[in-house]
Formats: sequence, C-alpha cells, structure tokens
Amino acid sequence: MTIALLTDFGLKDAYVGMMKAVLYSIHPEAAVIDITHEVTPFSRGEAGLFLFQAYWYFPQGTIFVVVVDPGVGSERTPLLVRTEKYDFIGPDNGVLSLALSAEKIHQVLRLNRQEFFQQPVSATFHGRDIFCPVAAHLSKGVAAEDLGEAFSGYFRLPDFFPATQKNYIAGKILSIDRFGNAITNLQAALLKRYFPDLKIKVILGTTRKVTLQRLLTYYAEAPDDKPFLLFNSSGFLEIAAREANAAKLLKVKSGDKIKILLKM
Amino acid sequence: MTIALLTDFGLKDAYVGMMKAVLYSIHPEAAVIDITHEVTPFSRGEAGLFLFQAYWYFPQGTIFVVVVDPGVGSERTPLLVRTEKYDFIGPDNGVLSLALSAEKIHQVLRLNRQEFFQQPVSATFHGRDIFCPVAAHLSKGVAAEDLGEAFSGYFRLPDFFPATQKNYIAGKILSIDRFGNAITNLQAALLKRYFPDLKIKVILGTTRKVTLQRLLTYYAEAPDDKPFLLFNSSGFLEIAAREANAAKLLKVKSGDKIKILLKM
Amino acid sequence: MTIALLTDFGLKDAYVGMMKAVLYSIHPEAAVIDITHEVTPFSRGEAGLFLFQAYWYFPQGTIFVVVVDPGVGSERTPLLVRTEKYDFIGPDNGVLSLALSAEKIHQVLRLNRQEFFQQPVSATFHGRDIFCPVAAHLSKGVAAEDLGEAFSGYFRLPDFFPATQKNYIAGKILSIDRFGNAITNLQAALLKRYFPDLKIKVILGTTRKVTLQRLLTYYAEAPDDKPFLLFNSSGFLEIAAREANAAKLLKVKSGDKIKILLKM
Repeated sequence: MTIALLTDFGLKDAYVGMMKAVLYSIHPEAAVIDITHEVTPFSRGEAGLFLFQAYWYFPQGTIFVVVVDPGVGSERTPLLVRTEKYDFIGPDNGVLSLALSAEKIHQVLRLNRQEFFQQPVSATFHGRDIFCPVAAHLSKGVAAEDLGEAFSGYFRLPDFFPATQKNYIAGKILSIDRFGNAITNLQAALLKRYFPDLKIKVILGTTRKVTLQRLLTYYAEAPDDKPFLLFNSSGFLEIAAREANAAKLLKVKSGDKIKILLKM
Repeated sequence: MTIALLTDFGLKDAYVGMMKAVLYSIHPEAAVIDITHEVTPFSRGEAGLFLFQAYWYFPQGTIFVVVVDPGVGSERTPLLVRTEKYDFIGPDNGVLSLALSAEKIHQVLRLNRQEFFQQPVSATFHGRDIFCPVAAHLSKGVAAEDLGEAFSGYFRLPDFFPATQKNYIAGKILSIDRFGNAITNLQAALLKRYFPDLKIKVILGTTRKVTLQRLLTYYAEAPDDKPFLLFNSSGFLEIAAREANAAKLLKVKSGDKIKILLKM
Repeated sequence: MTIALLTDFGLKDAYVGMMKAVLYSIHPEAAVIDITHEVTPFSRGEAGLFLFQAYWYFPQGTIFVVVVDPGVGSERTPLLVRTEKYDFIGPDNGVLSLALSAEKIHQVLRLNRQEFFQQPVSATFHGRDIFCPVAAHLSKGVAAEDLGEAFSGYFRLPDFFPATQKNYIAGKILSIDRFGNAITNLQAALLKRYFPDLKIKVILGTTRKVTLQRLLTYYAEAPDDKPFLLFNSSGFLEIAAREANAAKLLKVKSGDKIKILLKM
C-alpha cells in the first residue's frame, strides 16, 4: 500500500527521517513515496497546489499525508478524508481542500483515537506523532471508522481560486518552481471558457506593470530569452523563459497578484 | 532489514546515489531510509544530534550508517557498534557517541575485513567503499564477528553536553533547522532537575546580550512574532518564533554559546 | 528490477513525486533509486558526469532514466539505449553519451509507441509522460522492441572530453560539488599516461592565473587550508581544500576552463 508524503519539513533536518521511521515501524511493508518536503515553510497554498497536481497520478488506494501546519499544537483538527479512490490525512487548515474540490468525498473523520498515535504526542510534531502513525495503521488494514469520528465542515483555503470580474480575471502566483517558472492559479479549463482563441494578456503588479501576451507550447519554442506564457504540464498558466529564470527576470514572487484582461 | 543513512554528502551530487547502488547491489532486499544527507558539511555535532533524535523511532534491528567524516583517508578507525536493539556503523570521530551514550553497548568492532569492502577502496569516499558495503553484508546475514575485530575506547565528541557551573549552565546551539529554530544541547530532563518550575533565562552572546524568558508549548501559542523558548519534539530546548526565522531575527548560528542562569 | 533516476527537476516541487507516482502505478514492484535530482538546471555536462560516475555501481539490469532536457517538446528524439548490462532512457541531447562511451551498445531505439506513454502527453514534462512510463513498462517485462524502432547516430555531447595540445591539455570544470570541490573532466587514466610521475600544473583562467601543483591523496592530508589537487573517488581530477570550499576560495565555477601544462 502506497503512502505519499507532502510537507514543508525540508530535507536538511531529521524530521522526515523520523516520520519514515514511525511509518515503517508500524507497517514495514508500506511503500512510501515523497511528493516533496520542500514546500515553502508554512505555505498552505503551495502545498495545496502540489497535492492537486500530483495526487491523481498515484495508484488507487494511496494514502496522502500532507503536513504544512503552522498551527500545530493548537485547536485545529487532524483529519482523514476518504474519497472514491484515495485517503487524505492532514490538519484541517485547508492544505487538502484544493485536491478535495476535485474528488468525490465519501467520509470525513476527525482523528481522535490516541491508541493509534505515537506516544507521547509532542506539541509540535504531529506529522510524526499523529498523521504518520495513523496513515501506517490505515495502510495496514485498521478500519477508518476505528481511527476517528465523523466530522463536518472541513476548512477550504480561501483565495485559492481566481475571481472573475467584469473586465478581468484576478489570479495570483502560487509557486515559483526550481527553474524560476511562476505558476499561477489559472487553469486552462477556466481560461479556455473565456478565451476560445486564447488571446490572453497578463498584467503583473500595479505601479510597475508588465504585460505578457505571448503564449507558447514548450520552452524551447521561445525565439529569445524574454518571458512568455504557457500552460504547464498540470494545466496551469505559467510564466516561463527559455533556459532562464522568469521569476527573477520579472521580479515576481509567490503570492503576487496577476490580472487576465478580458478581450475587448 | 532496515538500513538508515545519515550523512553530510548532500543531495546535489551523485554521492548518495552511489551509496544506495552499492547497498542494493549487495542486498537487493534491504529497506533503505534516509535520515538526512544535508548535515552541515563536516558538522559532527549536528550529525550526532540528528542521530540521537531519530534513531529510537526506527524498528529494532535497524543498521545506522552515519558518515560525516572530514578525516576520511587518514588513520581514524571505521567502526561497527552493536547495542541491544541496533547496529551503528561509521567513522570513530564521535558522530555516533551521543546516541551511544543512551544505549547499552554489546560490542564494538573495528571494520578491517577488506573482502566486505567495495574494491578498490578509494581514499576519499569510505561511505561508498567501506561503510555501506559492510552494512549491506551485515543486513544480509554476515556475522558481525566476521566483519572486524574487537576495539575499545571509541571517541566521544567533547563539548556535546552542557556544563553546569555554580550560577549557570553553559550550553550551545547545535543546529539551526529549516524553519530557523535554534536547537540547543539542553534537554528537558536536565533543566527540569534544576528548575522544577521551569523559570529559565537564556543569555545569548557576551557583548550583545539577548535574554529570553518566555517558555511556550507550541509555535502558534506565541501572541506576537518575538522569539521565545520551547522544548521541541525531541526534548531539546529550542529558540523559536511564530511563522518566522528565530535564528535570523536573533542573528545566532550553530555553535553559538548560550547560558542558562540559575534562579536566584 | 531497479530504476535509477537522474534529473534536474529538483526536490522543491512535485515533479519527482509525479514521476514516481507514474512508475509505481505501472509497476508497483519496481525499486526506484534516486541518483540525484539537483543537477544544475539544463546542465547536460553535469548530468553526464553524474551518470558516468554512478551507473556502474548499480545492479546489472538497472534501467537509468536521465532527464535534463531543455529542448523538451521540440524535435529531439526520446531514446532507449541497451548495453551489455544496462538500459538507458532519456532525450537524445547528449546526457547519456559519456556513460555510453564506456559501454558496449547492443541496441538503440527511438521511443515512439504512444500506447506506453502517459496520456495525454504534455508538451513540457516528458520525464513524467514518456521516459518514466516507458521505463516502468520495460522493467515490468515489455520487450524493448515493442517500445520503439531502431535509431542510429545518437548525439554525443561535444567538449566533454579534454583536448590534448602540443604543450598542454585543455580541460574544464564539470561540476562544483556541495563541499565546494571543483570536479574537472580530466581522468586519472589520461593524465597518468602523460605524466608518469604525476607532476601536474593546473592553470585556471587567463588574465587571473592560479597555478596549482600540490597533488594529495585525501582531504585531511592537507597541512593548511590552501586549495590542492586530488583524484577523487571516481578517478577525476578535483580541486579541493581541507574542510573548506575550494571553488569559493578560487572563485571558479562549473564550465570554467583549466589547463594542464605538459612537463618541460
């Protein structure tokens, strides 16, 4: 049974190693795959994007453990969400919500069965002490019902989806990838609805306006090193440059707002 | 059989990949888990801390391969240390000593059986050529006695444990984690002995004194973004800040000294 | 069956996680090992070096998936190259060529069988959509002949091997490793041929000349912190410094030219 991990714990420290130690101690036969542990610290939006991009490539039955959790130790609820094909485990702070928006949800459980936690439960590392042990027990065959109780109204991350206004669509940059591509929250499906011929105009910033109009299909297609637009391999609009760091060239960062002007 | 790896080789180069290639070539059924490979280059103190924090979460029988080894190629001895539950493999330069201080040691062996090394043995990469092949053979069932000969007096890393003076405890910062938390060598068990009510006062630096007194339980408990103290998920005193980088805020780094004033 | 991955996708994003999801979805029993994903973006020379250093430590039958692919989406051909012991999969842009120069090639195939690709094939992520699914199918037992058609004349990376002139050998720096060691394209076998007694003189730069002559065997052998030369654990000439970053000390970077003066 596959367990996929997505956190902001980084690979510099021993945190991820401890989580895997707990997983394999409980379930030595588990197959653990890292999505990434280098989510920008505390960035639930970036974690949400990565989960949304990646989860549906995983085998049916995969258990996703997503821990970006600035509120660890506080009142927020630890969740298990079961969908038609997958199980999602993480804090109720919105990190799961983008992926769940695309899934048929069967069951939402609040994880409250201490006997399936790593004891003693620390105040600051629920990835190791709650989320991973529960995932390991679930992968080993413990019934979901035994792990928690019904819960309703999980938290949806606000401002994740773009807002359509009269003359424009208000989006934002969710992540700058390692190549410097700036990945927005604008999906091809949405934009194609508005722009059948895909003539789009992106405006970055307010005082310092940068307008991008060139839409390409792949990076090497660019005739020069100027930034351009493309729909990336996950269907999101991305600002890129050929063998160059578009985010640095344009001085944009995660969280920056962008506007798509409606054609007039 | 689980083999856990802890090194300062980083993930940028092919070094870790080569170590795993050697492990799996000798023992295809081994289960290899990374603790981390991003130990600060040459930092035996940080590696010792990470091993100490992580090792006891691993399944009984795990073989730990710890390679932070600035003296590679010189006279230092390659070791296998067997304890009640685990095997530890690494250079005799102190990287294993903190974890061993908490273990019941059964056997210490000097690894000197060339037939279990990767040949030819390079002068600069014993992780690949000595430590990993020996771990793979051990995990595969070769008797420990066949891998080396009895050795006594392994090296203990000095200055690892805090020193208690008349009016204060002299500690230091062992590691800055990816979130900017500064992790000290002061364990809850020690401090609680001296401060039953845990009123502690940390002094950083000499000319530039910073005093910290606020002790919290979890990060989100902080009412503001000022640095505070907490005992982290491994029981070590840590200087932290809520969703901020405490080490940058306080300009402290690994190796810096700190003082805990005894209550007067 | 082992599948080894070598890319410049980095560990910051979800790209590597998606590739592994595809691999395990097709072949749950595959054993996937990372060589590294932190190749300098777009650096085919560095990827070529890493593959060359690492591949022969892997078990016979390993399938290598090497994706450093600035031309993704353009006309370049996806390849499967079968040698006596291994299979190599990647774009026909030279990343495989250094390793192949040391191998006995049995078969070169152009991967063109869409039914073994992840559908729909994106324009910008062939690692996920072409190279990994093909590797998974191959590891699962699909005959190589069914995956593509014969191809001839694969691309050799130019400027990879040093050029021997009348009075000197012209080499270059292929990679700076995490410790700051500058790894050149000069192999011990070549240099030993020219310098039986290994008195070598390295000249860095043109205006700013730095001459290095001290050749050591291991790092801790250096009596001081001045940069020196050694043949590293893969047989390449490397510029190093004891517990210090030689590349920073000498201000050299990947791609820089170096000269080995012939003894006079």
